[in-house]
Amino acid sequence: MAKNITSPEKDFSRWYLDVIREAELSDSAPVRGCMVIRPYGYSIWEIMKNDLDNRFKETGHSNAYFPLLIPESFLKKEAEHVEGFSPELAIVTHAGGKKLEEPLVVRPTSETIINHMFSKWINSYRDLPMLLNQWANVVRWELRPRPFLRTTEFLWQEGHTAHATQEDAQEETNRMLQVYTDFMADIAAIPVIPGRKTEKEKFAGAVSTYTIESMMGNGWALQGGTSHYLGTNFAKAFETRYLDANNQRKFVHQTSWGVTTRLVGAVIMVHGDEHGLKLPPKLAPIQVVIVPIGRKEEEKIAVSEVAHKMAEEMKELGIRVLVDERDGMSPGFKFNHWEVRGVPLRLEIGPRDLAEGHVLASQRNKPGRENKFTIPMEGIAQAVNNSLTDIQNEMLEAALQFRNSHTYEVDSYEDFKKLLPKQPGFYKVWWDGNSDDETKLQEETKATVRCLPLEQRDGTGNCFMTGRPTSTTAIIARAY
Amino acid sequence: MAKNITSPEKDFSRWYLDVIREAELSDSAPVRGCMVIRPYGYSIWEIMKNDLDNRFKETGHSNAYFPLLIPESFLKKEAEHVEGFSPELAIVTHAGGKKLEEPLVVRPTSETIINHMFSKWINSYRDLPMLLNQWANVVRWELRPRPFLRTTEFLWQEGHTAHATQEDAQEETNRMLQVYTDFMADIAAIPVIPGRKTEKEKFAGAVSTYTIESMMGNGWALQGGTSHYLGTNFAKAFETRYLDANNQRKFVHQTSWGVTTRLVGAVIMVHGDEHGLKLPPKLAPIQVVIVPIGRKEEEKIAVSEVAHKMAEEMKELGIRVLVDERDGMSPGFKFNHWEVRGVPLRLEIGPRDLAEGHVLASQRNKPGRENKFTIPMEGIAQAVNNSLTDIQNEMLEAALQFRNSHTYEVDSYEDFKKLLPKQPGFYKVWWDGNSDDETKLQEETKATVRCLPLEQRDGTGNCFMTGRPTSTTAIIARAY
Repeated sequence: MAKNITSPEKDFSRWYLDVIREAELSDSAPVRGCMVIRPYGYSIWEIMKNDLDNRFKETGHSNAYFPLLIPESFLKKEAEHVEGFSPELAIVTHAGGKKLEEPLVVRPTSETIINHMFSKWINSYRDLPMLLNQWANVVRWELRPRPFLRTTEFLWQEGHTAHATQEDAQEETNRMLQVYTDFMADIAAIPVIPGRKTEKEKFAGAVSTYTIESMMGNGWALQGGTSHYLGTNFAKAFETRYLDANNQRKFVHQTSWGVTTRLVGAVIMVHGDEHGLKLPPKLAPIQVVIVPIGRKEEEKIAVSEVAHKMAEEMKELGIRVLVDERDGMSPGFKFNHWEVRGVPLRLEIGPRDLAEGHVLASQRNKPGRENKFTIPMEGIAQAVNNSLTDIQNEMLEAALQFRNSHTYEVDSYEDFKKLLPKQPGFYKVWWDGNSDDETKLQEETKATVRCLPLEQRDGTGNCFMTGRPTSTTAIIARAY
Repeated sequence: MAKNITSPEKDFSRWYLDVIREAELSDSAPVRGCMVIRPYGYSIWEIMKNDLDNRFKETGHSNAYFPLLIPESFLKKEAEHVEGFSPELAIVTHAGGKKLEEPLVVRPTSETIINHMFSKWINSYRDLPMLLNQWANVVRWELRPRPFLRTTEFLWQEGHTAHATQEDAQEETNRMLQVYTDFMADIAAIPVIPGRKTEKEKFAGAVSTYTIESMMGNGWALQGGTSHYLGTNFAKAFETRYLDANNQRKFVHQTSWGVTTRLVGAVIMVHGDEHGLKLPPKLAPIQVVIVPIGRKEEEKIAVSEVAHKMAEEMKELGIRVLVDERDGMSPGFKFNHWEVRGVPLRLEIGPRDLAEGHVLASQRNKPGRENKFTIPMEGIAQAVNNSLTDIQNEMLEAALQFRNSHTYEVDSYEDFKKLLPKQPGFYKVWWDGNSDDETKLQEETKATVRCLPLEQRDGTGNCFMTGRPTSTTAIIARAY
C-alpha cells in the first residue's frame, strides 16, 4: 500500500481524495465547490476530449461557441427547465461598474441560448439537421462538492441538435448514447449499462433522458453521460420552427447530450487500487516510463543512451514514453511516483539488463514483484505496443468481471433492504414503480433507480416494490 | 464585388461586419457585447488553437484549468491590477438561491487565482520553473464591442509561469513573444512587429509588456498578442516564494502571455477583400473545394466519381478538401459561396475537363477569370499541395508588401498630424515621450504608440513630439 493513501476497503471516500492528492490530479480552489485541475489531471481530460471530439466530427457534428452569460428571462421560458435549475444558478447582477437592468445567469447548460440562436438560423428543412457541439465550462452551485464528481464549475461538452422529425431526433439521441458507450469501453476501459432514466430522474426540460451507468470500485453507480430527446419543448418555448418541403411551418425536434470532467473521477474509481491511480493505456498521458538504473557514472551513461534509443523507437509507434532521469532520487522513489500516477507500464534497465539484452517490465494492473517479466531490447517498441494493448483489454475485462460479480437479482423490496448494506452493487429488479415509489426507495435505502437498461430481460415479473406485473427491468444502486 | 458586401475602400468597418455575416463566422448574442462563434468561425479558431498548443507543449508548457470565479478580494491584492480591471468586471453576487458573503468576479484574467495556487504548489527551487497554460473564456465588460476584436466574453489562452530568477523570467517572456511571432508568420501569414509597450500601455500589474503588432487592410494596427514580464509584483501580493539551493526564501519571478479569438478578426482584416474572407491555407478549415459540373445524369456520375477519387488522393496528403455536390445550386452560386468563405483553392471539373485529363483551378488570392489555370489530373494531389504552399507564401508576402508600402517615417508631430488622416499606416518616429505626451497624441490624433520595436533603428534622433534627443524609435498608428 502506498504511503499517504488510505485503503479503499477501509474508507473508499477518503481513498478517492488521497489518490487525487497524491497523483496531483486536482486541488481545491478558494471558492467553495470549485476545483483546480492540475496538469496531470488535465492531460487525462485532454485525451478524453480529443478522442470524443473525433467521434463527434465523424458523426457529422461541428463545434461552435455560445455565450457564458444568459439573460435570466431565457431560463424561465421552459417551465420544467427553470424549476430544475433555479436552485443551482450563479447570478451576475453588476457589470462594468453598474447594476444590470436584467440579471444574467452563468450558464448551467445552454439549451436556452442555443434555441434563441437556432430560431434565427433555422428557416427551412434545408437547414436541418443542425448538428452542433460545444466544449465549455458550466456552473451549477454545488452544496456537496467532491472533486471531479460534483463541482460548482465543471468542464464538459454539450451537443445540441435540431431535426425535422421525431424519428430523426430519437435516432440522434440513440446514436450519441452509443458513441459514449463505445468511448467508455474502448478508451476508458469502463463497461457501461446504457438505459433510460425514469420520469423522476430525467433532465429538466427533456421528453426522455438516456444514460450510461457504470460501477465504481465500491459497488456504487456513476452516471457517466446523458443523451436527451427534448421533443419540441424548447422549440415551442423559443419558436424554433422550419418550413417543410410543403411550405408548412413546423417545430424542430431536438436533442442534447453531454459528458463532463466527472469521467476523470470514474476512471479513478473504476480502476484505482491501494497503490493509487491505474490508467488504461489509451487514456494515459504517459503510457510507459523507463527508469534507468546505475551507480557508477559510466554505467549511467551507457544505460541512459540505450533508454533513450528505446524511447525513440517507441515514439515512432506513437507510444507516449518518458525516461525518468531525475537526479538524487532512488529507483524505489521513482517506481512509487509513477505507480501512484497509474502509468500502465514501467521498464527498468540496469547494467546487467544491458549486458543480457533485455529490460525488466512491470504492468501497473498486475502489481507485485512476482509479476515482473523481461522484454528483449530487440524489437522492444512492438513488444511494448502489444503489452499496452493487452493491458487495455485486461483492464476492461477486470472492470466487467467486477461488475458482474457485484450484480444481483432480487425479487422483493424487503430482501433488497437487507442485502444492499451488506453487498453494495447493481440490483436488477422488475420495475413498475412511480415517482412516489422512487422517493420512498431513496429515503429508506439511499439507493435510486439508475436506469431502465436498453437491453431488457425477456418475459415479465412482478415489480419488486409494488408487486404489479411488468415487463420492465431496472438497475437499482447507491450512486454518486 | 460580392453581393451584400460593402467595398472595404468605401467603409472598412461595415465591410468587416459584412464579411463576418456572409461567411457565417459569428453572430451577435442577446447579451450586449457578447458573440456567438458560428461553426465556420470556430473551426478557424480550432486550427489556431491546435497549432499554438503544440508550440506551447514543445516549449515545455502543460495545460491546466483554474476556476472561472475569483473572490473579489484577490483582485485587490495587486494595486495596479485592480485599478486596471475594476471598470470591466462582471460580478456574481447571488448563487444557490442566496446572497454571497463575498462577491465573486468572473475572471478577466487569472494572475490572482493562479498565484494563490502557485503559493501552495511552489516550495523549493526544484519546483521551478513552473510552466502552465490554460485555454479558457474570460469576461471584460465592453462598451464598444466589435465581433472578434472586442467582445465582453472572449476565448483565449493564458500562459502563466514562475521562475527562480529575473533572467529566466525575462527569457521566457521573450521566448513566448517569439512563439507568437512565428505562429503569425507561418500559420496566419501575418507579418508582425514585436516590440515593447510604453508604461502607459502596459498590462495592469506587469513590469513590462511585449506585443506583436500587425497592420490591417485599412492601415490601422492590431495588437495580436502580449507577453508580460511580471517581475515579483504578484509574488509579493500572494507570497509566492521558494527556498533556493542555499535555503533562502525568495520571491518567484513571473510571466504571463496570451492570444485571443481576436486573431480571427486579424485574419479577416489583413487578408480579406471585396469578395469576402481570404484564408491562408494553413488556417483554412477547407483548403480545397472541388465543384463538379455536368448537366446530363451520366456526365454528373462520371465527373463525381473522378472528383471523389481526386479528393481521396488529396486527403492522403493531409489536405482538407470538400467536394461540393449540393443539388439545385448553380456552379456560380457555389463559386461565390466558397469565395466569400475564403477557401484558398477551387477546382472545377466538367465533362470536357474530364476528357482532357485536367481540372480548372482558381486561387482565392488571385481573383478573376484571367488567373484560372489548369492542373493535370495525373499527380493532382502533389500539385495541389504545392499550390497551397505557394498561396500561403504569396499571402504572407502580400501582407508584408502592404505593410511596407503603408509604413512612413516622419520627423515632426505637425507633419504627422497632417499626414495621418490622408495616409493611415504605421509611422516610425524617434520617441522620448512620457504618458502625458501619449495622452495628448491620442486626444489630438486618435493614434497611439503601438510599440517600441525590438528591432531598433541605429543611431539617435530627436523625439518627434518633445524634440529631445533619443535613441528609441516607436511605431505610431491608429489601432483597434
